[in-house]
Amino acid sequence: MSKIAYVNYKFLNFTDAKIHVEDRGLQFGDSIYEVIPIFNKKLIDLNFHFNRLKYSLSELNIKYKLDKIKLKNIFIKLIDKNFILNGVIYLQITRGVQSREHAFKKNIKPTIIIYTQKKKFNLPNIKFKGVNVITYDDLRWSRRDIKTTNLLPNILAETLARKKNAYTAILIKNNKITEGTHCNIWIVKNNKIFTHPSNQDILKGVTRTALKTIIRKLNLIIYEKSFTKKQLYNADEVFLTSSGSFVTPILKIDSILINNGKIGNITLKIAKLYFNSL
Amino acid sequence: MSKIAYVNYKFLNFTDAKIHVEDRGLQFGDSIYEVIPIFNKKLIDLNFHFNRLKYSLSELNIKYKLDKIKLKNIFIKLIDKNFILNGVIYLQITRGVQSREHAFKKNIKPTIIIYTQKKKFNLPNIKFKGVNVITYDDLRWSRRDIKTTNLLPNILAETLARKKNAYTAILIKNNKITEGTHCNIWIVKNNKIFTHPSNQDILKGVTRTALKTIIRKLNLIIYEKSFTKKQLYNADEVFLTSSGSFVTPILKIDSILINNGKIGNITLKIAKLYFNSL
Repeated sequence: MSKIAYVNYKFLNFTDAKIHVEDRGLQFGDSIYEVIPIFNKKLIDLNFHFNRLKYSLSELNIKYKLDKIKLKNIFIKLIDKNFILNGVIYLQITRGVQSREHAFKKNIKPTIIIYTQKKKFNLPNIKFKGVNVITYDDLRWSRRDIKTTNLLPNILAETLARKKNAYTAILIKNNKITEGTHCNIWIVKNNKIFTHPSNQDILKGVTRTALKTIIRKLNLIIYEKSFTKKQLYNADEVFLTSSGSFVTPILKIDSILINNGKIGNITLKIAKLYFNSL
Repeated sequence: MSKIAYVNYKFLNFTDAKIHVEDRGLQFGDSIYEVIPIFNKKLIDLNFHFNRLKYSLSELNIKYKLDKIKLKNIFIKLIDKNFILNGVIYLQITRGVQSREHAFKKNIKPTIIIYTQKKKFNLPNIKFKGVNVITYDDLRWSRRDIKTTNLLPNILAETLARKKNAYTAILIKNNKITEGTHCNIWIVKNNKIFTHPSNQDILKGVTRTALKTIIRKLNLIIYEKSFTKKQLYNADEVFLTSSGSFVTPILKIDSILINNGKIGNITLKIAKLYFNSL
């Protein structure tokens, strides 16, 4: 049975899911998106995703009226129609179609695209795995706090990582670690936990936000403070968080082993607590 | 009669010109483009555009084999089918369609989109007009030398300019003028001409390249050297160049009048020489 998508207010076969060539999402990257995990048929951290979606729409002045209940119903229908047990909802909203010119007109009708992808998550059980990553220059624009589809710097870094058999790339700006190409980065040093503050230099990850409450339960202190490549290399433990990777240990960065290439105790505890909260 | 476009190796009605939602151009801004002027049915500076297209494809490792003769034939057919006397060819090449993930696979088939738009050019005759512009922060990524569709910072600046009844925005990075949102910026001071050097901080404009030869014919010296906002405000003359605007005088920047709000002699000479070369 063919996969179903929801495009411009209609359910349709995925192969027929198309948009016009003058859609501003295609011509200018004038669009935003969210990737929402589905775990055991359940939508994870949905409200956090809606809040960020609202923020992105508002920062770019895209006139889409967010109806959370309606969207949730579409998500549930797609999960059902596409037989998703574990996977993600991909939601993209573009400013809409307009005769090509840089400046956007008021009140054009946004394009909505929603579909599902199946996915296996990295869970803190017997198969829990750590990953290798590389570091790379952060070439992105100045507003990384908005979840836009201007993702060229991200995909160049990610493709290079894959070429080097690494899971992803950690980005560096002015000798400070900002985040990964699609995840936030955390280090543990002397039982203290550090991650980059949520300002315009990084995307405020949903898993990052959810994890902050959980970490506090462990009586560990989080410092939202940027750190250098040297501090990254010298960390006791390093892990990444994202909606697609949950909590995933990092065991090697470039040629440097972290915690002798083994999953650290604090990372494991945090991953388990996050998993139990799902 | 309806407008004709060329999409994925087929001519079709513009309303039917669509791409799949998993096209990487839409999901990641993983695409490049060119806008080629058509003046009196003639394609202007076509080889310069092909050269830049080749550079963009190569820098992003998009595997599209450029066949200049074939492309030119498509352009001519579209000019003919759409009755274009004066206008532009819009050409966009995306990496193609792939199940969504950041890293791109080798050998996916690029998506090609070509269509025309009608346009009136600003010509150095009795109707020659100068424009007002604003200045704005250059928020773009680090590789402005590649003509990609990651254009969100450009469209935000341009939309703000229009809101303020300005023609476009001049972008400033670290107190230096880089370029406009879709044009290069030039100043004249004491009969010397300055424009930003063509490095990774700006797009090497086709009209900019063509103009360099022309200006030398006037026995004027071009300094490819960046300049500050203060130098911009204090210039004797300021003009912009682009494939859509040719040579267009700038008469006011923010609240500052340039050359008492009148088109300068050197700008006019340059505009006329460029026009005569078309």
